[in-house]
Amino acid sequence: MKKTRLCDLLDIEYPIIQGGMTWIANAELAAAVSNAGGLGLISPNAGMSRSSDQVTNLKQQIRTARSLTSKPFGVNLPILGNPQIEDLIAAVINEKVSTAVTAAGNPALYTSQLKEAGTKVLHVVAAVRHAQSAERRGVDGLIAEGYEAGGHNGLDELTTFTLVPQVVDAVTIPVVAAGGIADARGVIAALALGADGVQMGTRFVATHECIAHPNFKEAILRASDVDTAITARKLGPTRILKNEVATRLMEMEAAGASVEELIAFIGSESRSRTGEFEGDLAEGEAYCGSIAGMIKEIKSAGEIIGTIVGNYDAVLARLR
Amino acid sequence: MKKTRLCDLLDIEYPIIQGGMTWIANAELAAAVSNAGGLGLISPNAGMSRSSDQVTNLKQQIRTARSLTSKPFGVNLPILGNPQIEDLIAAVINEKVSTAVTAAGNPALYTSQLKEAGTKVLHVVAAVRHAQSAERRGVDGLIAEGYEAGGHNGLDELTTFTLVPQVVDAVTIPVVAAGGIADARGVIAALALGADGVQMGTRFVATHECIAHPNFKEAILRASDVDTAITARKLGPTRILKNEVATRLMEMEAAGASVEELIAFIGSESRSRTGEFEGDLAEGEAYCGSIAGMIKEIKSAGEIIGTIVGNYDAVLARLR
Repeated sequence: MKKTRLCDLLDIEYPIIQGGMTWIANAELAAAVSNAGGLGLISPNAGMSRSSDQVTNLKQQIRTARSLTSKPFGVNLPILGNPQIEDLIAAVINEKVSTAVTAAGNPALYTSQLKEAGTKVLHVVAAVRHAQSAERRGVDGLIAEGYEAGGHNGLDELTTFTLVPQVVDAVTIPVVAAGGIADARGVIAALALGADGVQMGTRFVATHECIAHPNFKEAILRASDVDTAITARKLGPTRILKNEVATRLMEMEAAGASVEELIAFIGSESRSRTGEFEGDLAEGEAYCGSIAGMIKEIKSAGEIIGTIVGNYDAVLARLR
Repeated sequence: MKKTRLCDLLDIEYPIIQGGMTWIANAELAAAVSNAGGLGLISPNAGMSRSSDQVTNLKQQIRTARSLTSKPFGVNLPILGNPQIEDLIAAVINEKVSTAVTAAGNPALYTSQLKEAGTKVLHVVAAVRHAQSAERRGVDGLIAEGYEAGGHNGLDELTTFTLVPQVVDAVTIPVVAAGGIADARGVIAALALGADGVQMGTRFVATHECIAHPNFKEAILRASDVDTAITARKLGPTRILKNEVATRLMEMEAAGASVEELIAFIGSESRSRTGEFEGDLAEGEAYCGSIAGMIKEIKSAGEIIGTIVGNYDAVLARLR
């Protein structure tokens, strides 16, 4: 498998990053991905209860990961609306975490602080102007996330196929493609479009190491190609597995529901924790990419990476 | 460039099809694409006035194309809502057109009739179940069209990156990827995902040979990555260049406008003819793929294909 400049930047063997999925990107998963040659990411609130402290939890997760791997790993840090973001940044710096992925917020805020401490910064973008702005702010690389990705999604609805080459043409730093990737075909397609690597989320949920609830993992295995949908466009488009919550949200939106009505329905508790971690897929939401239909088996994280690496040359050979 | 089984099926040199865009896929464009080694497609109403007869126009277009190329070309035949579809099918058969692309309708209706006459049938699909159903009906190949494509779009919003591999895994016949492709990177990405070829629409609008109005071509060159949007989800999702019509449609949809209200706004005249052929981009619509931001120059159709073929090996070399 091709070694790209992303491998040099992050000190990893294969240009594969595991998405730092809120609530469920736990230390064991991240360590398994890093041990297999990719870059695992931890979510600060992985596995914690609603009332726990994110910062304490993150420190614990980092130490657990460190006990399981000597390889580099990273932390996912969505900025917007997180009241503890400064303490989380401080924890990442104090614990000398190799890589921070910043998302949903202004890259001007923490990039230089993290970089001065020796932490590499990747910023998630979903349009060319955001990519250019993040590059100007000094981030080390970009994660260009397309419309097919699970969870929170850009407003501009650019797909991986159209976003990646346009971002690649607009910046000089490494670009990681995210959204819709689950096998060697997707990895090679992403690299062909100009990406220096990939990030996969949903594929790594359906692993033995991920602490997602078994109900969520099983729902991914059962999903067909049309079993995810974008919901809550007015609040912030979010791709979730189709269920009663999704249906209700889409009905409300079709009827012209206001932002306030959508917020009132969604409630203050995180429905994604309810769905993904507690396994209540009737009342909860499960953030899920539209590639779920291609995922048919729960594997170990190492097996997923090994299969991609093993199939790489065969896919490439078909193109000659 | 890789010769795939699509080349054998359609008797073409390169696995590149030009989209048969309503109003603007004219004989000169189709012939230029076919002469360059791809498969050009004619739209039955290319270049005609609203009051003209589609069948007469199609016959004239076919004859013009035949006078310009000895290579195979095809005709695009959207089925749904076309009162003259039977006469158009008869014209394709009588004129012994090499390939028919059927779309927006049931492939059970005309596939065997076309095939018995020696015309190859490709059917446009946007989800796995439609791909499987079309294969059962005996079509020769599929065009799997993603959410990034211009014009009418599937209801399930599957992107090229997620649709293509899932369709490829579900059928045995050749699959053509459409939506988001404009250069050699996109072609190789599509083939990596398992496609046997590509269809490009928007890229071929911005050509010297296409009869699209210069205003439309210029608007494509000016477009950024975020200058198209899906409109009219309740009627049939349609990707168009952002303009006043698009803004108004999106505002109406956000407010919960009904199907009747959307139809009343759009009117009975074809706004796409007004935009694309007459060049009125204030009152008209211009169907346009979200790859428009990557198109910076009007070229000849042959130059587009030649550049893709010429860059193919260099893109491939980056993957090793």
